Amino acid sequence: MCQLLGLNANTPTDVMFSFTGFATRAEEHKDGFGIAFFEGAGARLFVDAQSARLSPVAEMVRRYPIRSCNIVAHIRKATQGRVALENTHPFQRELWGRYWVFAHNGDLKGYAPRLHASFRPVGDTDSERAFCWLMQELAKAHATVPSVEELSATLRELVPAVAAFGSFNFMLSNGQALWAHCSTRLAYLLRQHPFQAARLADEDLSVDFSAVTTPADRVAVVVTEALTRDEAWVPLAPGELAVFRDGTRLALN
Amino acid sequence: MCQLLGLNANTPTDVMFSFTGFATRAEEHKDGFGIAFFEGAGARLFVDAQSARLSPVAEMVRRYPIRSCNIVAHIRKATQGRVALENTHPFQRELWGRYWVFAHNGDLKGYAPRLHASFRPVGDTDSERAFCWLMQELAKAHATVPSVEELSATLRELVPAVAAFGSFNFMLSNGQALWAHCSTRLAYLLRQHPFQAARLADEDLSVDFSAVTTPADRVAVVVTEALTRDEAWVPLAPGELAVFRDGTRLALN
Repeated sequence: MCQLLGLNANTPTDVMFSFTGFATRAEEHKDGFGIAFFEGAGARLFVDAQSARLSPVAEMVRRYPIRSCNIVAHIRKATQGRVALENTHPFQRELWGRYWVFAHNGDLKGYAPRLHASFRPVGDTDSERAFCWLMQELAKAHATVPSVEELSATLRELVPAVAAFGSFNFMLSNGQALWAHCSTRLAYLLRQHPFQAARLADEDLSVDFSAVTTPADRVAVVVTEALTRDEAWVPLAPGELAVFRDGTRLALN
Repeated sequence: MCQLLGLNANTPTDVMFSFTGFATRAEEHKDGFGIAFFEGAGARLFVDAQSARLSPVAEMVRRYPIRSCNIVAHIRKATQGRVALENTHPFQRELWGRYWVFAHNGDLKGYAPRLHASFRPVGDTDSERAFCWLMQELAKAHATVPSVEELSATLRELVPAVAAFGSFNFMLSNGQALWAHCSTRLAYLLRQHPFQAARLADEDLSVDFSAVTTPADRVAVVVTEALTRDEAWVPLAPGELAVFRDGTRLALN
């Protein structure tokens, strides 16, 4: 199984602390890693078919404080698809003049959707097929980029058709919001004023967030497994689609 | 004006030597840099809105020997479009289940093509509009990925319609070949057996290629301005579209 990490914030935030904890888990998830940062409408995608423990790209991400309001990261243990760059998450496509990034944790058995439009997989993973299908169906459902609420409603209709094939924990972002779907395991945390110190669960490293934030800052972090020991992570239920914008979780109808 | 660097080889080759010389020129091209590496069907795109002189991402690229048969790099001096990540070349899209990367040097005046299909610009440069239009027209001309020769013939028909708007030096690759179009200034070099030493034009650095290659290796390097002092760079003529595959230039009919 792979692991996912997502961040959504109301002010550009670096992910160095969370990514350090996350990359620690790469020993058993050694078949590549990737991380996407939105900066305005632009996106930067760093991927490597090496383990995040060893990759010079991961090393740079740990040291270079790239600040972003929407981040999606993934460490991979191959279940379907060879260990190759084209099979490394997150995947990226453009739709309606916006970039979209997607990362998946899980396994879809015998999933071969009809891809008849302009989104085709480059690699050979179930994950990229699912992403292409979601993009294709979103493109059919809306003529131009809809609101986050409308997108969420469409995704809620589409996702069960994919999730029926197996486990489909995923993160999706277009730079405006972060969508997180839980099939088996996903938890989130909202960090906001008053900020406190937190200690990584896997490494002897702690950060006092009150020293690096302002009272107006809000950050949502979504992960496969809780990254810190001393914060209140909220598990998502199987089948739940959560949407985060400006560092808070949106209430969907 | 921006500067372009492309590499096409028959064996995965690192670009550290060429990129070091290229990045030296970033002092006057300080509005961002980007470099795309194909690895099989996969692609890695590193972009930064900082100068290649200062960017930690560029520093990593100079030190991490990523080997690739097709590389496209760009350093930017903004002419159209703000200094922002979404305006940083190379741009990337997917078509026919392959990634395509594109970088442009030049200026297209009043260029507003009709983009009615599934490729829309995310940023606000003439360059990304031209790339989206080329992708749209390639998609209309061929149902699935055609041969490099067929693609070259189609590009040769399409490119003049864009070049009519100004200067349109570009590099395009889909991981199978490198297309280089010269509007005002572009030169290439074929390195092959017997390899010799070469000295960078802008920096006091030389490499003895005979020590790091095998006799079967072939590498084509395409640039805006010759990178080395002691090699025979071949200028392309205005209006010329050159295609490189496996480190050699293809003869087109």
